[in-house]
Amino acid sequence: MITPAQTLGGVSEEGLLGSIFPFFTTQPGLLVGPGDDAAVVAASGPVVATTDAMVRGRDWLDQWSSASDVGAKLLTQNLADLAAMGAVGTSVLITLVADPATPVAWARDFAKAVGEGAALAGVAVAGGDLSSAPPGVLLVSITALGDLQGRAPVLRSGARPGHTVAVCGTLGRSAAGLRLLEAGGDQAADGDQAADGDQAADGDQVSPSDQGGIRQLCLDHHRRPTAPLAAGPLAAVAGASAMLDVSDGLLRDGGRIARASGVCLDLVGAAIAADVAALAPLLGEAAALDCVLAGGEEHSLLATFPSAELPPGWRALGTVREGEGISLDGRAQRQRGWDHFAGDVP
Amino acid sequence: MITPAQTLGGVSEEGLLGSIFPFFTTQPGLLVGPGDDAAVVAASGPVVATTDAMVRGRDWLDQWSSASDVGAKLLTQNLADLAAMGAVGTSVLITLVADPATPVAWARDFAKAVGEGAALAGVAVAGGDLSSAPPGVLLVSITALGDLQGRAPVLRSGARPGHTVAVCGTLGRSAAGLRLLEAGGDQAADGDQAADGDQAADGDQVSPSDQGGIRQLCLDHHRRPTAPLAAGPLAAVAGASAMLDVSDGLLRDGGRIARASGVCLDLVGAAIAADVAALAPLLGEAAALDCVLAGGEEHSLLATFPSAELPPGWRALGTVREGEGISLDGRAQRQRGWDHFAGDVP
Repeated sequence: MITPAQTLGGVSEEGLLGSIFPFFTTQPGLLVGPGDDAAVVAASGPVVATTDAMVRGRDWLDQWSSASDVGAKLLTQNLADLAAMGAVGTSVLITLVADPATPVAWARDFAKAVGEGAALAGVAVAGGDLSSAPPGVLLVSITALGDLQGRAPVLRSGARPGHTVAVCGTLGRSAAGLRLLEAGGDQAADGDQAADGDQAADGDQVSPSDQGGIRQLCLDHHRRPTAPLAAGPLAAVAGASAMLDVSDGLLRDGGRIARASGVCLDLVGAAIAADVAALAPLLGEAAALDCVLAGGEEHSLLATFPSAELPPGWRALGTVREGEGISLDGRAQRQRGWDHFAGDVP
Repeated sequence: MITPAQTLGGVSEEGLLGSIFPFFTTQPGLLVGPGDDAAVVAASGPVVATTDAMVRGRDWLDQWSSASDVGAKLLTQNLADLAAMGAVGTSVLITLVADPATPVAWARDFAKAVGEGAALAGVAVAGGDLSSAPPGVLLVSITALGDLQGRAPVLRSGARPGHTVAVCGTLGRSAAGLRLLEAGGDQAADGDQAADGDQAADGDQVSPSDQGGIRQLCLDHHRRPTAPLAAGPLAAVAGASAMLDVSDGLLRDGGRIARASGVCLDLVGAAIAADVAALAPLLGEAAALDCVLAGGEEHSLLATFPSAELPPGWRALGTVREGEGISLDGRAQRQRGWDHFAGDVP
């Protein structure tokens, strides 16, 4: 029996696993689940695989993010990478590397959030690794596997001049949420409800006068972002020529498509004006623009399409042209954004 | 251009990636490699997946293990898990989470060792994740994917009374190596050559009089263990009824087969006498027995076979009987060994 006050050092590995395995619902494609040397997952063709880690003190702070937030965010990061290839997630492996002084409750809440999110996405928790770490260290990682359902993967390299640049999902909210937290905005926020079940509201445009609402949406999106997972495979079906998820900022990630494809992505200022306007009352105009252009951890999907006719949920941001890099209304932009070791590159 | 004195904080993420990608040779099954949102790997049927992490200060100490040692060991741990299912490795994803003060040389040496080991095993480096960590933190993780080549996976649950318990590979060497390091044996060791290319010697029995030789083999096996990767699929072909790799100790891992199968594994003392005798001159009789029975990180394969006729490279350790747990010459053994949070359970 595990009590709320216990730490990982006070329970056995098998005791802890026994208490978190019930959070992991089974899925038809999971042929061998947690408990053996490795998992076995059914595959109908090529396997899409990605991995993403989060470490306390760099990727989250305990005073701003709960274990449940971290689990939900880490899962979204990984599943968004699969969606950006046009794939549907099938399974995840979870790694928890933790100081033995970590509360058992943290590990359980984290596992519960991943399990719940995975079940919602129809993804099996296939296994993972549990390991102890030196004092203070808490790291979580997920590897996600996905299926292309017979389609070719959508790479970053297929954008061609004349194609339409489009996004599905929000822009700048996660970065705005982080700025609010850094400015002490969490305390100012009224309520701070958990974002569970709030996915429908996430794509809405919020009027600038509704500052409390947009503030909360930004805080929520920073803590536990949602991604338009179904839009990735649908974009692939619709013929998307290049795609990725916005994890390091629109300019930096857009620049990756531009470089891989050997083209220029020319964005239209008017297309992001509403995104900027929604954040401006919270942060000011300049910071709002910066969040929209360079804000990471958003996990919206950015793609190019051969036709101007976009699948439902997508909106045009601009046009692919000959050249290189990213431009905004024809003016070249530096590819600022998040660099994992250098930090924010201005 | 990256110089040896540089730290990760002094180079861009893309600069670092550009300097390590050349270590990763391509493989025919890798359809989309590093550089997109996710990798795409060919699959001929169900995918076997496992993940294992190592963190500095718990899983290795810099004064005993080089970056190259850590890379080789982490790869072996993961590929041994695939082999224990009867699978052949196809690809790996690599995670590096590091304090920006980490020397670039460490990251490069680590990546080079994984790349070389993967190439030797015919495994593609499909992608990974690179992330910064708080001061002092250095963590590496691999997720390995494998293929069953049309066979059923070998689980832990198929051992039946009358089956033969067998091992392929060494016993106790990694634990003995750790004890030697803890006792300052590294300094006493003459030469301390790298273990590269030394895989053939690893399975040999060494006469007790050759103390220098066995000392070095133990140190090498602790730092960069080899695993009999090909023996796993061959055991599956030969009808192995249960299998795992010895990662937490013979008694603890054997106990896992016993529990999953609802049987008792009855080991014969005479069958491990040579393993104990080889280590006894280094450590004394009692510690040598302890290393053989409870030493982890060995990555030999432990299996049960319906017949007493074993595939090449395997040797019998005992018999599966009705009952539970592990016994040695008929006497029940506590399932001591390594617990990740509680540590060594005596």
